[in-house]
Amino acid sequence: MKYPTRFLELIEDFKKLPGIGKKTAERLALHVITTMDDETVLKFSNDLTAIKKEITNCPVCGVLQEAACPICSDTTRDQETLMVLSEVKDVFVLERTNIYHGNYHILGGSIDFSRGVMPEDLNMDGLFKRLEGVSEVILSLNGTVEGELTSNYIKEMLKDKPIKVTRIAYGIPVGSDLSYADDQTIFRALENRRKYE
Amino acid sequence: MKYPTRFLELIEDFKKLPGIGKKTAERLALHVITTMDDETVLKFSNDLTAIKKEITNCPVCGVLQEAACPICSDTTRDQETLMVLSEVKDVFVLERTNIYHGNYHILGGSIDFSRGVMPEDLNMDGLFKRLEGVSEVILSLNGTVEGELTSNYIKEMLKDKPIKVTRIAYGIPVGSDLSYADDQTIFRALENRRKYE
Repeated sequence: MKYPTRFLELIEDFKKLPGIGKKTAERLALHVITTMDDETVLKFSNDLTAIKKEITNCPVCGVLQEAACPICSDTTRDQETLMVLSEVKDVFVLERTNIYHGNYHILGGSIDFSRGVMPEDLNMDGLFKRLEGVSEVILSLNGTVEGELTSNYIKEMLKDKPIKVTRIAYGIPVGSDLSYADDQTIFRALENRRKYE
Repeated sequence: MKYPTRFLELIEDFKKLPGIGKKTAERLALHVITTMDDETVLKFSNDLTAIKKEITNCPVCGVLQEAACPICSDTTRDQETLMVLSEVKDVFVLERTNIYHGNYHILGGSIDFSRGVMPEDLNMDGLFKRLEGVSEVILSLNGTVEGELTSNYIKEMLKDKPIKVTRIAYGIPVGSDLSYADDQTIFRALENRRKYE
C-alpha cells in the first residue's frame, strides 16, 4: 500500500523534533489524523506559525520575549547580579527553582575549538557592554570541557574589573548538561557558588 | 518570570499528543522556538492544516485515503479475501509485513458493553453489504475481551452464509493491542489462522 503523501510528510516533520524516532513519529501523525478533531489540529498549526513571529530573543540578555523581555523589564530583579548562561533553555531551569532573582545573559553556546566556535561567535561583546552597575557575575555554564573553557575565558576578560566573578558550584554532575539537573541540584549548586579564580 | 503566552499554548498543543507529558512538551516547544528554522516550522504547520483536509477515510473499507483508496483501487489485490480490523492504524501494521494481499474492512472500534459501544456504533452494516464474491473473512481483532466479543458477533452474523470465517491466530499476546505486535508475531499469527467456529 502506498501511504498518503501528506501523511509521510507529517511523519518527517515530527521526526525533526528531538527524541522522536520513526515509530513515534508515525504514531503521532496517525493520532493527528484519526483522533484529534479539526479544531485542535488547526490551533496546533496556528500556534506553530505564530510562535516564530511573536517570540524573539531579547537583544540585551537573549531571553525569549513576546512584547518586552520578562527579565529585563522586571525592575524588581536584582540589577547588580548578572548570571551568564550558555542556552535560552537554561533560563527555564533556573526560573523554575525560583531562587535566583538577578538578571541573565545568554551566550548562545560555549567556546568549542574543535567545532570552530570562537568567543566572537558568542554574545560576549553584549556581556562586556552591560557590566555597569553589576557587582557580581555568576557563571552558570555546563559542566563540560567547553563550559569550563568558556568560564575561564570570561574570568580572564573580567580580571581587571572591580566585579566579583563566581561560578555555580559543582552540584551539577560533571560532563552533563545544566538542563538535565533537578531543582535540588540547581539549588545546592547556586548556594555553594564560589569566587572563580 | 512569566512565560510567553504562545509558548505555553504550544506546550499545551504538544501535550495533546499520545505519550507526551509536560516536560517533553516543554522541550519540544523550546526546540521549535530556538532550534528549528522558520521554513521547517512553517512546513510543519502547513502539513498539520492540510492533512485533515486531504486525508479522509475510504467510505467502503475505512482505510486512510488521499484521492482514491490505496486498497480498494488496487485491483491486483485478492478480492475474495476480506480482513476485518478494529482500527485504521492496524492497516499500517499489516501492510508493513507485506504478507497479506486481500482487502480490509475497518470497524472503527470493538463492541464494548461497559462503555456502551454496540454493534450498530461500528461499521458492521458496511461489512455485511460488501460480502458478494468474498470467500473468506479473516477476523484480525485485538486479543482483548472486546476483540473476542466482536469476533464472536461477526461469526454469528455470518454463520448461515457460504463464507469461511477465520481468525488470526493467537500469536498476538493475549490482552494486548494488535498495533504493538512485531512483524514476526503478525506473520505467525496470520499463517496459523484457523476456521473460527
